[in-house]
Amino acid sequence: MEMEQVLHMNGGDGKTSYANNSTIQVRSVPLTLFLGHKQGMHKAKPMLEDSIKMLYSSNNFPKCLKIADLGCSSGPNTLSLVREIVDAVDETCRCSDRKAPVFQVFLNDLPGNDFNAVFRSLPSFTASLMEEKGSNFGPCFVAAMPGSFYGRLFPNGFLHFVHSSYSLHWRSRVPERLVSESAGAVVNKGNICMANNSPHDVHKAYLDVFDTDFKLFLRSRSEEMVPGGHMVLTVVGSGIGTPSSKTCTVWELMGMTLYDMVLEGLIEEAKLDGFNLPYYAPTCEEVKRVIQSEGSFKIRRFETYKIDWDVNGKNGTRGENVARNIRAVAESLLGNHFTNLNMDDLFERFAKKIADYLEKERGQCTTIAVSLIKA
Amino acid sequence: MEMEQVLHMNGGDGKTSYANNSTIQVRSVPLTLFLGHKQGMHKAKPMLEDSIKMLYSSNNFPKCLKIADLGCSSGPNTLSLVREIVDAVDETCRCSDRKAPVFQVFLNDLPGNDFNAVFRSLPSFTASLMEEKGSNFGPCFVAAMPGSFYGRLFPNGFLHFVHSSYSLHWRSRVPERLVSESAGAVVNKGNICMANNSPHDVHKAYLDVFDTDFKLFLRSRSEEMVPGGHMVLTVVGSGIGTPSSKTCTVWELMGMTLYDMVLEGLIEEAKLDGFNLPYYAPTCEEVKRVIQSEGSFKIRRFETYKIDWDVNGKNGTRGENVARNIRAVAESLLGNHFTNLNMDDLFERFAKKIADYLEKERGQCTTIAVSLIKA
Repeated sequence: MEMEQVLHMNGGDGKTSYANNSTIQVRSVPLTLFLGHKQGMHKAKPMLEDSIKMLYSSNNFPKCLKIADLGCSSGPNTLSLVREIVDAVDETCRCSDRKAPVFQVFLNDLPGNDFNAVFRSLPSFTASLMEEKGSNFGPCFVAAMPGSFYGRLFPNGFLHFVHSSYSLHWRSRVPERLVSESAGAVVNKGNICMANNSPHDVHKAYLDVFDTDFKLFLRSRSEEMVPGGHMVLTVVGSGIGTPSSKTCTVWELMGMTLYDMVLEGLIEEAKLDGFNLPYYAPTCEEVKRVIQSEGSFKIRRFETYKIDWDVNGKNGTRGENVARNIRAVAESLLGNHFTNLNMDDLFERFAKKIADYLEKERGQCTTIAVSLIKA
Repeated sequence: MEMEQVLHMNGGDGKTSYANNSTIQVRSVPLTLFLGHKQGMHKAKPMLEDSIKMLYSSNNFPKCLKIADLGCSSGPNTLSLVREIVDAVDETCRCSDRKAPVFQVFLNDLPGNDFNAVFRSLPSFTASLMEEKGSNFGPCFVAAMPGSFYGRLFPNGFLHFVHSSYSLHWRSRVPERLVSESAGAVVNKGNICMANNSPHDVHKAYLDVFDTDFKLFLRSRSEEMVPGGHMVLTVVGSGIGTPSSKTCTVWELMGMTLYDMVLEGLIEEAKLDGFNLPYYAPTCEEVKRVIQSEGSFKIRRFETYKIDWDVNGKNGTRGENVARNIRAVAESLLGNHFTNLNMDDLFERFAKKIADYLEKERGQCTTIAVSLIKA
């Protein structure tokens, strides 16, 4: 499966679109996050502001600040993070009586992302920015750079500030050992990604891909960034693999839902065995280890926080709301593999599964936020 | 009417899409050009190559070449011009035993343009480029910068090479005097843009907008380009306004088609009176005058050539083919104004009108190609 072609949020602005299933603060609804992301963004904001303040505390601060948002997703919310960065720079400059820089912002996501939807909201974004900040501000140019961030996207020494919010838990590919048809193939029975009951070999296979991906991400950014450039990353973290972990991720619940449909004869078992998400949420130690072994970046701050699978401001039960949000994120991947599956049916069952789980458990996931500086 | 929101080529890849109604060489089907653009692109190629050769003949040629294609339109063909530029640079570097630069290409069009379609063909574009040129080449990063080129799009001194193909005959707006409801409004009876029988005041009104637009275009590019940077522009030119001109543009024929529908009671006359295209094809003298009065650019080459309204490689009559191409370009504008008009009916009548005209006249238009260097 060509991940770059298949993986994208639901486009447009219909009932199941990503744009209509994320709140203002939820710009990149991640797998396992839903509207809880609202809390995540809120919690990461001080780190973002601190990072920008430090970037601008140096004497040779850039007159044209080049920013990349990697894994920007689609919808009007995509621009809310741009706005947060612009506001933070503006505030820092005001405090030190400096003129705010010209902004050149690059929104990045895979080529299948619905960039058209983002572009349609650009004129009003720019107009409101100019109106609030005054004509002496900026300007702020917003471009798109489609492509995989597990590889080069920009020329050498081009970027001053890089941000990636809830995207780095997506892998560039499903581990080969899980999809290879050779004798040694590992089967992740009844699961669609790393789960509590996955065999050790499955964990190892996913972890290897994470190591390679994340190292390539850091190496690529290192080449693209100026020395002293800053980077703020948030990623879904994991306690999976530790024996004490008894809670589920939403993806385990999705795996169970699909397995129920195998038992009812609606999906062939081999079809489910052949489906694995290009998704791995790393532990804190795994993130730190790769950053340190790659060696281009110094860790300034490293934080974690728990986030509820919370759903606010939508009609319907919590299960339905969570399912609707996951649908906006994952339908392209699921539909591509289970070609004849009734998606309405699947997500109704999934909503029920989520609701049952939330009656017994709180439903939380971990966010890892890290602020880096290029050495 | 907010031109920036309304004016865009038909998106997607359906029967009436821009992508399916332009040949490989026709990347930005202009009003009045159709597939004759194939000839236009072919004729402008030596000027493009010459311009790039000169850019790279200087000793301080850029290691990362920043290129903008303004008015890039949508569809797989959009990238064919990028390929032409990359090939020309590569060829020039090979001849002088230099390593080809890193390319950073910015595709620009209005925010309503279907950039998604362009992005979908990016992975195969990049893959074939790397395969043909070898891994030592480039890389070539292709980004999108949505917005009006009648204003700033990039930071100061950012671009080395700017190209715009068959886009600068589009105006930023319809002249106010034509749409104002005040007593002094000029009515362009039975026409939808400058026509042979338009009143002198209408010509003056369009020319004023052209002057303002083109000056703003040049001033904006002047600020965005490095000194010594090159720019190649092609634009539909006009002999309209000279008393000897008896031929029609396709837009005059579209005006006649719409007026026929007024006479049949299918369109209200006031509705047609209120419709004017944001389109003006300047004369050579008008183009030269604005370049010289703006003063930032030196004219290196200035050429004109006639191009047939030719249609090759499509099923159907010449009239039908021409109409189909114009539909891909103009349906968004027409549909936005004539909200309840049957578009199939309109374009069938238009095809007939074109066919009748082509029985008597050759059907040609003028292209102006100009190569500029920033002083």
